[in-house]
Amino acid sequence: MEQVSAVKCFGGSQQQWTHQSTAVGCQMRFSIFLPPQAQSGPVPVLYWLSGLTCTDENFVTKAGAQRFAAETGVAIVAPDTSPRGEGVPDDPEGAYDFGLGAGFYVNATQEPWSKHYRMYDYIVDELPGIVAENFDVDAPRAGIFGHSMGGHGALTIGLRNPDRFRSISAFSPICSPLNCPWGEKALGGYLGNDRDAWANHDACALVGKAAVKTPLLVDQGDADGFLQEQLKPELLETACAANQHPLTLRMQPGYDHSYYFIASFVGDHVKHHAQALGA
Amino acid sequence: MEQVSAVKCFGGSQQQWTHQSTAVGCQMRFSIFLPPQAQSGPVPVLYWLSGLTCTDENFVTKAGAQRFAAETGVAIVAPDTSPRGEGVPDDPEGAYDFGLGAGFYVNATQEPWSKHYRMYDYIVDELPGIVAENFDVDAPRAGIFGHSMGGHGALTIGLRNPDRFRSISAFSPICSPLNCPWGEKALGGYLGNDRDAWANHDACALVGKAAVKTPLLVDQGDADGFLQEQLKPELLETACAANQHPLTLRMQPGYDHSYYFIASFVGDHVKHHAQALGA
Repeated sequence: MEQVSAVKCFGGSQQQWTHQSTAVGCQMRFSIFLPPQAQSGPVPVLYWLSGLTCTDENFVTKAGAQRFAAETGVAIVAPDTSPRGEGVPDDPEGAYDFGLGAGFYVNATQEPWSKHYRMYDYIVDELPGIVAENFDVDAPRAGIFGHSMGGHGALTIGLRNPDRFRSISAFSPICSPLNCPWGEKALGGYLGNDRDAWANHDACALVGKAAVKTPLLVDQGDADGFLQEQLKPELLETACAANQHPLTLRMQPGYDHSYYFIASFVGDHVKHHAQALGA
Repeated sequence: MEQVSAVKCFGGSQQQWTHQSTAVGCQMRFSIFLPPQAQSGPVPVLYWLSGLTCTDENFVTKAGAQRFAAETGVAIVAPDTSPRGEGVPDDPEGAYDFGLGAGFYVNATQEPWSKHYRMYDYIVDELPGIVAENFDVDAPRAGIFGHSMGGHGALTIGLRNPDRFRSISAFSPICSPLNCPWGEKALGGYLGNDRDAWANHDACALVGKAAVKTPLLVDQGDADGFLQEQLKPELLETACAANQHPLTLRMQPGYDHSYYFIASFVGDHVKHHAQALGA
């Protein structure tokens, strides 16, 4: 573990760290915001999963979530969106929606991806372990949220691991990778043609199998250019209704897919998690 | 005037525009946030001046001020920090503290700078005229604030033009360009060796000549790496005390020069202006 930076922010500390990851087999960087309350005892921790092309920095610089994390007393961890560095293969054509910056939060089974592209294990197991070991967080009180590809990651990882993540929310999530071009490409590439394996990474499919009915908060802009073809919140709405899974889906009129949208509503999300985690 | 973008944000609209500037003789880009209140009548308007190396975008993406602008009902205009484009000369060595991104909010008198580097006229006259003409703002109710070089710009332009800017605040301003290396280089370059001319762009010198004692709100982090050599708020404190000019200087313990610092306190600044402007 090596600290890259630490900057005071809203009375707390915004930090960047690097570490050698076993799960993904390369050096990984993550950001963590520690609220002022962390100085006097362990605080709950939220994991933010970013979208396509992002690193650990986009959310940290643009969302303005630290204000609410400081108000409610929660830490926020923002990992990278894929393995990176020497030896980590990228999409042969450098596409934005596969390879670097586009890990889709799965464990790849196909070559040449299976060695490094294991973001599922990294997020579910390795990173929470590192955070619990190195920071004053109350590790069992953890929530997960994210945006777009990261919204997909938050929903799927949260639904499959209620023991690890007690609260879940998402902005503009890819609700069903089984049913959109981004999902077809990414899950096809990382997991091959076995669509049953894809279903383990499809929020709509997982809602029916969830051991715990963790309430889902989802915000979606209705002026989002990816809404119809890629995101499809109506599929999540149908799946939740069919399985009596609690979902609060808020269609936000006029908002797009950007961080301006996230910043506008991130306070509600942090409060949603803080309340669920007893912060 | 050409609109580059418009994105919904906190119920208002974050926009980017370009226009041909007479003052600086090139195409200029600026950002403007229109709060939801602007849909039902003219709102006060704040001008944000950014620091070295910035464009119109840094404040807009990183400071999170839109939240407070929407709460209080003020527009915020963020111009670029220098002329740019074909034919606009830059520092021969491409230094970050002179030329492009470093206009210092003066009208240059020296060659080759005097043709384009006229940011003082651009901010004082041309931009407010364009804003008044094209947006539903209550132009006489205007305030000015900024960061670092832009804090210097806000203090000096605000003190010299109380008819145009009724409220003033700054983050980490260069308080006395007459007395720091950044100022020596920039004012020497743009204005030549006549230090009397420099005094027209030195907040500490201007405090003694201000026609109106507009109260100044200044936030300064005490862990700011530029504090001792470049910023020198103690000089402003002394000048304000000597001239009975109202100054609220808040030394913020542990904060640096970054946008994390600005984001932490920008709400106080927007409220300071909104109150002064009757928003």
